Amino acid sequence: MNYQLLPLIGSPAQLKSLSDEQLLQVAGEIREALCEIVSDRPAHFASNLGVVELCLALHSVFDFSKDRLIWDTGHQIYPHKLITGRFPEFKSIRRKGGLMGYPNPVESEYDLFVTGHAGASVSTVMGLKAADDLLHPEQGRKSVAVIGDGALPSGVVFEAMNNAVELNQDLLVVLNDNKMGICPRVGGLGKYLDRARTASFYNGLKRDVSWLLNRLPVVGEPTEKLLSQVKDAVKGFLHGGMLFEELGFRYVGPVDGHDLVALREYLEMVKDVRGPVMLHVFTEKGHGFKPAAEDPVRFHTPVPFCRKDDDSVEYVKKASAPSYTDSVSDAIWSAMQRDSRVCVLTAAMCEGNKLQKIRDDYPDRFFDTGICEAHAVAFAGGMAKAGMRPIVDIYSTFLQRSFDHIFQEVSLQNLPVLFTLDRGGLCGPDGPTHHGVFDNTYMRTFPNIVVAAPGDDRDVRPMLDYLLTIDAPSSIRYPKTNVEVVQRDVAPIELGRSEVYRWGEDGHFVAFGAMFPDCVRAAERLRAEGLDVGVINARFLRPLDTDTLFKAIESGFVITVEESTLNGGFGSAVLEAANDAGLDTRLIRRLGIPDRYVEHGERQELLADLGLDVGGLVAAALASAARQSMARQAAE
Amino acid sequence: MNYQLLPLIGSPAQLKSLSDEQLLQVAGEIREALCEIVSDRPAHFASNLGVVELCLALHSVFDFSKDRLIWDTGHQIYPHKLITGRFPEFKSIRRKGGLMGYPNPVESEYDLFVTGHAGASVSTVMGLKAADDLLHPEQGRKSVAVIGDGALPSGVVFEAMNNAVELNQDLLVVLNDNKMGICPRVGGLGKYLDRARTASFYNGLKRDVSWLLNRLPVVGEPTEKLLSQVKDAVKGFLHGGMLFEELGFRYVGPVDGHDLVALREYLEMVKDVRGPVMLHVFTEKGHGFKPAAEDPVRFHTPVPFCRKDDDSVEYVKKASAPSYTDSVSDAIWSAMQRDSRVCVLTAAMCEGNKLQKIRDDYPDRFFDTGICEAHAVAFAGGMAKAGMRPIVDIYSTFLQRSFDHIFQEVSLQNLPVLFTLDRGGLCGPDGPTHHGVFDNTYMRTFPNIVVAAPGDDRDVRPMLDYLLTIDAPSSIRYPKTNVEVVQRDVAPIELGRSEVYRWGEDGHFVAFGAMFPDCVRAAERLRAEGLDVGVINARFLRPLDTDTLFKAIESGFVITVEESTLNGGFGSAVLEAANDAGLDTRLIRRLGIPDRYVEHGERQELLADLGLDVGGLVAAALASAARQSMARQAAE
Repeated sequence: MNYQLLPLIGSPAQLKSLSDEQLLQVAGEIREALCEIVSDRPAHFASNLGVVELCLALHSVFDFSKDRLIWDTGHQIYPHKLITGRFPEFKSIRRKGGLMGYPNPVESEYDLFVTGHAGASVSTVMGLKAADDLLHPEQGRKSVAVIGDGALPSGVVFEAMNNAVELNQDLLVVLNDNKMGICPRVGGLGKYLDRARTASFYNGLKRDVSWLLNRLPVVGEPTEKLLSQVKDAVKGFLHGGMLFEELGFRYVGPVDGHDLVALREYLEMVKDVRGPVMLHVFTEKGHGFKPAAEDPVRFHTPVPFCRKDDDSVEYVKKASAPSYTDSVSDAIWSAMQRDSRVCVLTAAMCEGNKLQKIRDDYPDRFFDTGICEAHAVAFAGGMAKAGMRPIVDIYSTFLQRSFDHIFQEVSLQNLPVLFTLDRGGLCGPDGPTHHGVFDNTYMRTFPNIVVAAPGDDRDVRPMLDYLLTIDAPSSIRYPKTNVEVVQRDVAPIELGRSEVYRWGEDGHFVAFGAMFPDCVRAAERLRAEGLDVGVINARFLRPLDTDTLFKAIESGFVITVEESTLNGGFGSAVLEAANDAGLDTRLIRRLGIPDRYVEHGERQELLADLGLDVGGLVAAALASAARQSMARQAAE
Repeated sequence: MNYQLLPLIGSPAQLKSLSDEQLLQVAGEIREALCEIVSDRPAHFASNLGVVELCLALHSVFDFSKDRLIWDTGHQIYPHKLITGRFPEFKSIRRKGGLMGYPNPVESEYDLFVTGHAGASVSTVMGLKAADDLLHPEQGRKSVAVIGDGALPSGVVFEAMNNAVELNQDLLVVLNDNKMGICPRVGGLGKYLDRARTASFYNGLKRDVSWLLNRLPVVGEPTEKLLSQVKDAVKGFLHGGMLFEELGFRYVGPVDGHDLVALREYLEMVKDVRGPVMLHVFTEKGHGFKPAAEDPVRFHTPVPFCRKDDDSVEYVKKASAPSYTDSVSDAIWSAMQRDSRVCVLTAAMCEGNKLQKIRDDYPDRFFDTGICEAHAVAFAGGMAKAGMRPIVDIYSTFLQRSFDHIFQEVSLQNLPVLFTLDRGGLCGPDGPTHHGVFDNTYMRTFPNIVVAAPGDDRDVRPMLDYLLTIDAPSSIRYPKTNVEVVQRDVAPIELGRSEVYRWGEDGHFVAFGAMFPDCVRAAERLRAEGLDVGVINARFLRPLDTDTLFKAIESGFVITVEESTLNGGFGSAVLEAANDAGLDTRLIRRLGIPDRYVEHGERQELLADLGLDVGGLVAAALASAARQSMARQAAE
């Protein structure tokens, strides 16, 4: 591909000197760069194609070297990266050591927050605006949040908009409305936006200018005031933005998000309006690349493909082994077939969690709340209270958004909600906002919750089935990777019982979760080196199998292994229990995620760096064996 | 007081046979019972006075032995308790072993969820409704959530309402609008509700009936449809409920919440309406007791008083020693005076956190978001990014609602937000939803956050001042109690340094936070018994003062003391560090909150039960000393 303008743009300031024609050429080159990336590896695609013109318009109207811009749920940051000096490194995106697939303040002053989780953009630009107005009011810095219609229903957005009206901040919220998040949108708000989209009286800029001019405060007699309010109401309805207007925002639009000229006119118009403004922009996910526009769900993060021409693609086939996500989804489907009380809730993760078949086969017992994790968990609490067996199927990292509802609506009430925590562990190229490395700790913070993890694929179904029978809240977690199977006579699942895969003379690996197969491999390698290291598939963090663990601790070294933070995690639970029992814990060593954020990269690369691969396990065991033999010599 | 009807009501079914006159008499007796309680001890008052008629109307129209009722932020549960068989035990409310001051399923089948935290009611009744419809559709059970205007802006409410429209559930949300939460309400939604309140065309039931009848689906030509929609929009505006109508709810009201007859008529009307309905009820906080109606903030949880007559009260004076809340508030005020970058955010806790003086003296740097903790934290992240030094002043238990924003908008970005966690520890009569016993664990889950706690009042100001100087997020936590002072030459605050109050020959207490003075007292008592136990004021959980702690661990027994969960808390951090360093941890013992929910009661009673008072500390030290001497004998 021959890039002509894009390589010349070192800073968005240069956009201001380009003609409309040149800007359109830049837009075309950005789309080329996007196609090049995704034909090579999975990356966010359709959403980026949809914001090319919006991104160019924003940067050519505002000056974000001082004005503030937050892209909510920042996977649509690629065009922004391409025009803020990162074209040369663009091919490194989502690779270890390369550009992050989200905004990243370390890379550029134009990236203010890492925004992998949805919904906080309005709050953060409000904070930026409040601070700018206090610290240097003379500069008149502007604040802009760009938020998709998928993120809009997140409760925190509503909290922020409510507060923005109270503060009467000069604030621009750009609603990037492509009629979907990752999946087609859901909820009353979506229906509302559909009505706005089809508002018959939409006739563009001129109307919006007069609308804004007419919004002067109304004074005078009550009757006059009332009439004026009625007029406003009618206009508001015709306008399509009544919901936001009622809340206190000025609503402007809708405007075609691929009409660069119109976008710039609109942005110029609202730039200096006082008070909070919402600009409603319609975009098309996948715009400019026909296959993506036609199937934006598939092209959200497509598998690598070759372009045959502009109208079709050929997928680069990869043998796709089943993942833990597949396995859990299958197990849930079977449980639903067996037991009509079992139902599933997810939060816009129908695709990610592979729940399509469940959605289609059991539509009455499948609930997708949209990106509303807090609501999903409280809803599940209600269902459990009334006798259902709800499964909350949400990524580990996104379930953090329900922390307080796990507490009040589930743990405190001791209700049998089962949390299936997908992406439990390092998530790969999405990086720190998507790594699910805190759940071992946060799930055991609150009383009553049974905390479990399958050691391999053969644990998945019996564990899930078992947890659906107990009268308590519970969770299982599993990583984003293909399933593995450890050949053995699988011990049945019993509450709080680990599975001793093999007892060791010298010491033991105690794996909580899917590091179990790697522990087996490491033990085999160690045996070849003359060290007899057993492997225990812990299965449960709470209740902990203290019988087995204490026996292991008393017989030799113990290495706890988890793909989760070491701060208060599984290893910490083992230490606590051993300490409470008065055991000597000096030969216990904990492996897991250290107390820092782990970057993006392939999961296996990242795990290896942290000593959480077979090599790292072997090295840790050799070190423990050496310490043990020193300790034994000292004791003799 | 002579109760005539109330003692006879064993179940709400009996209300159905009462005449309107008798119901009014019951209302009067309920108000008497409320006055009796609060003249004796602090309890929620004004909010309960405000819902007496609403409660009676709900129970006389619905049958909540099968229909579902959730009182959001359930401190207005008292009238409900009085008519659901709990009049005889009512005087025990908020006392240890007595009735809980919130709904409690253990007490009654009429209480479905313990609801101390705001906002989840709509979600939970949706879950109940979905389950009831799946499990026994033939019963046609109704679902009702009662939510105050204070809780309404909580994001989870909006998430739920959005989803309710999607599901088109038959659902009744009663908006109990008293124009305030604990403090006067804030935000665009509040302004909106004010407009609804004064909607000039309000003319009652007849209009609402015809409104509902007219809401049949519109079919026909697009033009006809549009005209009909315009008509609806005008009606909607005149009606006052446009915001909810736009979202997809049917809005009915407003209705006077103290007119029992009107309330019942409205409830009968909406009872069988299909789809989600919001009934807007205006109530007066403190209604029926003049001093409370006139000053509902003071009478939210008033200090005990004597009624002189119906029009005035005399407070039973208590010597009110300053609390940690006062001390922190003073320290913040001083920091704000000194440094114009310091600002404060709270979430409807201006009263609880005693921020009135700050609000009045620094209105530009004081932000009350309403019950919107998630937004407050993300907002603070934005302010910190732009150069301010925001303090987020929220109760420990309510900050749980911001868990994901502490993660993404603060810890991940490593921004200098200071969290001041009030009510860190057992909170007393409010019980488990208000105990702040999880923050030591959740604050240390995420990297970068400095986690600190003052040992006594003399630590408060220097610690807060110090944390405002560091370039990292941080937190301090302190309990709901009066300040104490340990006489000493106070060591200056240094990052990650503990303060050795006294070194001990036999062992040490290591207190993280305000248990420090009790540790000093326990050590004194132990000295009288011949045991030399030192006391270390830990001050920091992260970074941990391993130098001092390891020295203590190597010299004798160590007892860690914290008013927070033992699961992954301060003691666990000490164990982890000692284990990482290869130390023998057998003589470390951890004291704290066990892995179960702690009931309500006076803080000191509850702490004593858990061995977290001076007596418990002494006993723990004696036990540790015994173990130590046995271990030493064995080693000899």
